[in-house]
Amino acid sequence: MGIAIPGFPASAIITEVGPRDGLQSEAEFVPTARKIELIQSLLDAGLRRFEITSFVSPRAVPQMRDAAEVMAAFRDRDDAHLTALVPNARGAEAAIEAGVDAMVLFASASESHNLKNVNRSREASFEGFAGIARLAEGTGVALQGAIATAFGCPFEGEVAVEAVTDQARRYRDLGMRHITLGDTTGMATPALVIQRVEALAQAVPDADIALHFHNTRGVGLVCAYAGLSMGIRHFEASIGGLGGCPFVPRATGNVSTEDMVYLFHESGVETGVDLDRLTGSARLAEEIIGRELPGQVMKAGPRLQTASTDSVRTAHG
Amino acid sequence: MGIAIPGFPASAIITEVGPRDGLQSEAEFVPTARKIELIQSLLDAGLRRFEITSFVSPRAVPQMRDAAEVMAAFRDRDDAHLTALVPNARGAEAAIEAGVDAMVLFASASESHNLKNVNRSREASFEGFAGIARLAEGTGVALQGAIATAFGCPFEGEVAVEAVTDQARRYRDLGMRHITLGDTTGMATPALVIQRVEALAQAVPDADIALHFHNTRGVGLVCAYAGLSMGIRHFEASIGGLGGCPFVPRATGNVSTEDMVYLFHESGVETGVDLDRLTGSARLAEEIIGRELPGQVMKAGPRLQTASTDSVRTAHG
Repeated sequence: MGIAIPGFPASAIITEVGPRDGLQSEAEFVPTARKIELIQSLLDAGLRRFEITSFVSPRAVPQMRDAAEVMAAFRDRDDAHLTALVPNARGAEAAIEAGVDAMVLFASASESHNLKNVNRSREASFEGFAGIARLAEGTGVALQGAIATAFGCPFEGEVAVEAVTDQARRYRDLGMRHITLGDTTGMATPALVIQRVEALAQAVPDADIALHFHNTRGVGLVCAYAGLSMGIRHFEASIGGLGGCPFVPRATGNVSTEDMVYLFHESGVETGVDLDRLTGSARLAEEIIGRELPGQVMKAGPRLQTASTDSVRTAHG
Repeated sequence: MGIAIPGFPASAIITEVGPRDGLQSEAEFVPTARKIELIQSLLDAGLRRFEITSFVSPRAVPQMRDAAEVMAAFRDRDDAHLTALVPNARGAEAAIEAGVDAMVLFASASESHNLKNVNRSREASFEGFAGIARLAEGTGVALQGAIATAFGCPFEGEVAVEAVTDQARRYRDLGMRHITLGDTTGMATPALVIQRVEALAQAVPDADIALHFHNTRGVGLVCAYAGLSMGIRHFEASIGGLGGCPFVPRATGNVSTEDMVYLFHESGVETGVDLDRLTGSARLAEEIIGRELPGQVMKAGPRLQTASTDSVRTAHG
């Protein structure tokens, strides 16, 4: 563990979203057994919260067609908290049946992104959420709310902070305590993180706010650091940085889990994760999808892994 | 410009090190005309401080054999501050002759890295610096001091903060005001930045401290952000992220200038640089060396570049 930074929390919780958000954008189907192998490896590294799959139409997202099978492999792990993305009542029924701990409902803070993403207005999305909330009643399955385009919209540009706080209030009104701000297209900046976290502390003081960043413009971890500096304790990340940017083919997507764990530990913030094992999971993710992923720590190795003076060429300055 | 962050400086100065630190590790010689084209492009983007070349033995570093020619192309630019890395008296004579504004002297904070890098003890390095200081007297050429392995050593592991403050004091004793901490192998963390900047404010209160980070473990910009939070106003970066890691082939090296400018502007810190032009320079750097560079903003484009809703595939969450 590194030196503690004044004002930072002593520990943080990382939800691994690679199995859902990361794999979802892979064109080629990843065999169910390999998904299970990757999740098992992440559990072995010490991660305990997962966005594990998505109960969507197999026609719309063929990669997630094995949602129930993936859940079945882990639903008896009482030490793991498993959530699934759920777009509608049909998905909610399947998710409840599959034994998820919580369903993640999502809408965008900007109307045009919501229309593009789920083909309905934000108002219609919230009508659907009310129906899902009724389905969930008495099942013991919790609801979580995700706010997409919380730091900017690829179609509309800036997103007003009020659009985010209003949506958070609506989630709270539906009984959701856990609310995630999603940096859908890498538009978050540390200044916007500070501004939005401050506004949410006023608007929904009893909510548990989680932050999800993309590294599209290289500042994903800076945004997480800004979140820590504001006392945020819950973050989402994707092993190896799995999951590209849907808008720019050459750009990076999700912040990688192992780089986040490295930064947190070096900032005195405990995560409960074994970084060495986690970089092994990142390399497994690379092997499974068959190409290089953007995570850095798995390539560079541990910070204090010393080299032999014979083994390197000189840098000269 | 983004929202200002409390405690951050209103402006910062970025020294571009791509032409020296970035290109130096390129095995294939980059034609002098292309180096000049790249530097001109960076000047056109608004950068005004350059580590432009290195006056080293052409046998040791063939890439820098055109140091005098590169300098000759820009020495009359009175609005640009041009420095060169100088390893010994012979290099210093050539640098003074070539008309540099300042010579950068360098030694490592750890003995084994100094031995490996320049094949002499730190004590011997400082004896050499005293000789260079005498050469520089009366020429109008300033001296700057760089501290390599300031955040950790690939051979020795952790580097004591006292090793850094002691070296900074020795540079001050030789009359150097501008002192750079170099994160030679990507071992800097924000906590170490805070610790070292605090210690230097005590040890050399009148020095102008600059920070140079590598993105080897993904946290280069987080370290720069931590530097800003401590009031540091001077940073070094390399266009496109030119310059790999000499220790790990797959790992990233220098923080990219355009990503740093993006972060600074979005944090309310002015740099005087036109980011659009600068991403053009980054693409030029990619073209010149013929491969993809790690810079992110040049791939993702401006933050507020809005897409058409017809142009993208959906992200679904």
